[in-house]
Amino acid sequence: MQSYELNKTDVSNIKKALKGDDAYLSVLLSEYHASEIAILFESLKMDDRERILNLLDVKIASDVISEMHEETHPEELLLQMHPEKRTEIVEELDYDDATDIISQLEEHEQKEILGDLNEDDATHIRKLLTYDEDTAGGLMNTEYISIQLHLSKKEAIEEIIRQSEAIEEFYTIFVVNKDHVFKGIVSLKDIIKSRGDIQITGLLKTDVAWVRPETDREEVARLISQYNITSIPVLDHENRLLGRVTFDDVIDVMEEVNTEDILKISGVSEDEELSGNWVEAVKSRLPWLIINLGTAFLASAVVRSFEPTIAKIAVLSAYMTIIAGMGGNAATQALAVTVRRISLYDLTDKQAYRTVLKEFTVGLINGAVTGLIVFVFAIIFDANAMLGVIIFLAMTGNLLIAGVTGAGIPLVLKRVGIDPAIASSIIITTFTDVFGFMLLLGLASKLLL
Amino acid sequence: MQSYELNKTDVSNIKKALKGDDAYLSVLLSEYHASEIAILFESLKMDDRERILNLLDVKIASDVISEMHEETHPEELLLQMHPEKRTEIVEELDYDDATDIISQLEEHEQKEILGDLNEDDATHIRKLLTYDEDTAGGLMNTEYISIQLHLSKKEAIEEIIRQSEAIEEFYTIFVVNKDHVFKGIVSLKDIIKSRGDIQITGLLKTDVAWVRPETDREEVARLISQYNITSIPVLDHENRLLGRVTFDDVIDVMEEVNTEDILKISGVSEDEELSGNWVEAVKSRLPWLIINLGTAFLASAVVRSFEPTIAKIAVLSAYMTIIAGMGGNAATQALAVTVRRISLYDLTDKQAYRTVLKEFTVGLINGAVTGLIVFVFAIIFDANAMLGVIIFLAMTGNLLIAGVTGAGIPLVLKRVGIDPAIASSIIITTFTDVFGFMLLLGLASKLLL
Repeated sequence: MQSYELNKTDVSNIKKALKGDDAYLSVLLSEYHASEIAILFESLKMDDRERILNLLDVKIASDVISEMHEETHPEELLLQMHPEKRTEIVEELDYDDATDIISQLEEHEQKEILGDLNEDDATHIRKLLTYDEDTAGGLMNTEYISIQLHLSKKEAIEEIIRQSEAIEEFYTIFVVNKDHVFKGIVSLKDIIKSRGDIQITGLLKTDVAWVRPETDREEVARLISQYNITSIPVLDHENRLLGRVTFDDVIDVMEEVNTEDILKISGVSEDEELSGNWVEAVKSRLPWLIINLGTAFLASAVVRSFEPTIAKIAVLSAYMTIIAGMGGNAATQALAVTVRRISLYDLTDKQAYRTVLKEFTVGLINGAVTGLIVFVFAIIFDANAMLGVIIFLAMTGNLLIAGVTGAGIPLVLKRVGIDPAIASSIIITTFTDVFGFMLLLGLASKLLL
Repeated sequence: MQSYELNKTDVSNIKKALKGDDAYLSVLLSEYHASEIAILFESLKMDDRERILNLLDVKIASDVISEMHEETHPEELLLQMHPEKRTEIVEELDYDDATDIISQLEEHEQKEILGDLNEDDATHIRKLLTYDEDTAGGLMNTEYISIQLHLSKKEAIEEIIRQSEAIEEFYTIFVVNKDHVFKGIVSLKDIIKSRGDIQITGLLKTDVAWVRPETDREEVARLISQYNITSIPVLDHENRLLGRVTFDDVIDVMEEVNTEDILKISGVSEDEELSGNWVEAVKSRLPWLIINLGTAFLASAVVRSFEPTIAKIAVLSAYMTIIAGMGGNAATQALAVTVRRISLYDLTDKQAYRTVLKEFTVGLINGAVTGLIVFVFAIIFDANAMLGVIIFLAMTGNLLIAGVTGAGIPLVLKRVGIDPAIASSIIITTFTDVFGFMLLLGLASKLLL
C-alpha cells in the first residue's frame, strides 16, 4: 500500500544476489529504504549482514543499524565489523541510538568502540550511557534545536538554519535562557508567520510538558500520547535542557511495554526475547512453571484430602476437570480486562471497588448460567439431581471467586506499588483450582455419601 | 514529572467547586489543560461534564471533546448539549475527530448534528463518515498543508502561511500537481534553508510512504512506526491527495490494537469496553465460556471413559489436576510469545517451522524437568515408582503438546488468514487437557491395573 515494499520476491532476489558479486548486489540494494534492509537482515546470517553493511553508503548503513530490531542484535553486527567502518557508522548514528546499541555490549567492548570515536561523540555517548535505559534519560537524544530567548526573528531563523545542518529531523524548537535553562517552545511556523522583526519572547509557548532524566519511560510515553506532541524536553533539576525524547521512540516503547504485559500476564518472563532460542525460552519459562507446580501441588492436596469420596464416586473427577477449566478461564478473562484497564487509566479507590463489584456480578451470572448447563447435563447423563445441584453451586461459587480474584489481585498489587501484570494466570488459577475443588468435593462428601 | 499534573487533590477540588457557583469553577478550570479535563471527566457524572463544557471557551471545549477517551462516550455528551453550543464545538473540531465521534451515533442523531453545521464542514464530515473506521480513511484528517509543484520559494512560504491559519499543527508539507495528484513532500526547514528563489520541484522528496483510504489501520501504524514519520498521505486510486494520518492517531490505534490482542488471547471479546458495566461484560464473555464448556465436556469425556481406573486408584485425580494445570500454563506461555511475535514480525515459512520446533524442544525440556519433580514427589508420598514414571511421561508429553499447539495453532491461523489471537487460551487448553488426561489415565490403566 505504498510506493515500495519488501516482499518475499525481494528477499529471495537479494539472497540470490548475495551469491554473486558486490557490483550487482550494490545496485539491487540501492532500491531499498534503510528500514527495509533492517527487516531483510532478520532473515540473513551475520556474515551476509556484514557484507551488505560494508557495501552501503555510511549514512544508509547507520540508518540500517539504528532501524534494526533489538532482538536482531545490531551491537553484535557492529562488533564484527572492521573498526574503521564501524567508527564511521557509529559517528553517523544519533547519540540516543548509538547509546542504545552500545549499552548492550560488555564494558571492555564499549571501551573499544568509544575509544575509536572522536572526543565529542564519545563524551555525549558516555554521558547517555549513565542513564537507566527504562527512563527518559535512556531514551533521550542530546541533539536538538535550541535558541536563546532574546533573539530577534531574523537571528532566530539564522540560528535554526545553522543548527539544522547537523540535525536532520526536528519538530519543535526549544527556547532557553543564557544559562541553558528551559523557557518554552516556539514553532518554526510561528516564527515565519510573525510580522516585523519581533523577539522570540513574544512567540514563546511556556505551558508545555517536560520530564526529568529519571522519569520512567512509560510516563514519558503517556505524556507524549496525552498531549499529542512530537517531542518532549528532558530537564535536569535546575531545569537546564538536557535533551529531548521524540514520538518515534515512544512508539517503540509502547510496543515493548505491550509485549511485556502480554508475556507477564501469560506467565512468561518479560525479558524473554520473542525470537530467542530454546535455551532462553526454557530459562524464562521454567521458573514460572515450577512456581505453578507448587500451586498445583496445593490444589492436588485438596483433591487428595477427598480421596475416599472420589474412590466411591469416580465420576466426580470428570466434573473436577470442568470446574477447574472454567474457573481458570473466567479468572483469565477478568484478569486481562483489569490489567489492561489499570495500564491505560489511573483508577480511583471508588472505581477500583466498583471494578471488583462488577466482576463479582459477572462471575455470579456467568457461573449460574454455565452451572445450569452442567446441572442439566448431570441429570441427563448421570441421572443424579443432587450431583447436578452440587455442580451448579460449585460452578457458580468458583466463577464468582474467579471474578473477584481476577480483578482484585491486580488492583491490590497496583495499590501496593507492584506491577499488576505479574498477577499472571498462574497465580490466579491457584485460587480457582483450590476453591473450586473444595466446593465441589466438600459438598459431594456431605451430600452424596 | 511535568509542570502541571492532575492528581487526586485536583479532582477533589474541582468536585468541591462543582457544588458552588460558575464563577469560581471557571477560574479553577482555567488552570488545566484540555487533556487533563478530559481525564477528569472519567470520574464525573454526565450533567457535571455538560456544565463544565458550557463554561469553557469553545476552543478548549472542543479540545476536551476530542481528547475524551472513546469509552467515556463524548458523542453522548455532545448529544446532551444545547444545539447552538454543540454546533460551535463540532465546527471547532478537526474533521477526523468530529467524524470519529459522530460515527458513534444513530443515523437520525448524526443527521441532526450535521444539519446544524455550516455546509463546508458538513460535507467534509459526511465524506469521512463513508470510510470504515478501521482503515486509513477512517483515521485520516482532510486538513493539511499542500502546495503546488511549480511554486517558487517565496510563493510557497506565503501559501504555507496562508493555509496554516486554519491548520494549527502540521509536520509535513505535501506537494501536488495542478490535478491535486500527490508528488512528494518538502519540509519547511528545507524551504527556508534553500538559497535563492528556487522552485519547490528542486526540494521535493519523492521517495515517501503513502496509503490508500482502504488500507487497514494496523498497516498504517506499522508504516508510520517503521519510517519514523509524523504523518502519512492518503491517496485515492488516481493518486490524488485525500488527507493525512498523523502519528498521534497511530499511538491511539496501537493502544486499541494491543488491548484487543490481550483480550482476545484471554478469551474476551475484543469489543468489550474495559470500563463497561457488568451487562456488557457478561455479553462479551459468556459466549466464550460456553465454548470453553463445550471443550471442557470433551476433556471430561476422556476422564469419564477411565472411570473404573479412577475408582480403583483415586489418587490419580490428584495428579490429573497437576497435569491439566501445568499443560494449560505451558500452552499459554507458548501462545503468548508466538502471537506477539506474529503481530510484530512477518514470519517466513522457515521461521514459522523453526518456531514450532523451538517450542517442541522447550516443551520437552520443561516437561521433563517438572515431570521429574513430580516423579520424586510420587515416590515419596505415594511410594509408587511406576506411578511416578507414568506421571513423568504424561507431564513430558503434555508440555510437549502444549508447546507445539501453543505455537502451531496461531501460526496456522495466520497462514490461512485468520487473526492468530483468537487461538485463545480457551482453545489451546482443550488440546492439553484432552491429551494430558489420555496419556495419564491410559498409561495408568495399562501399567497400574
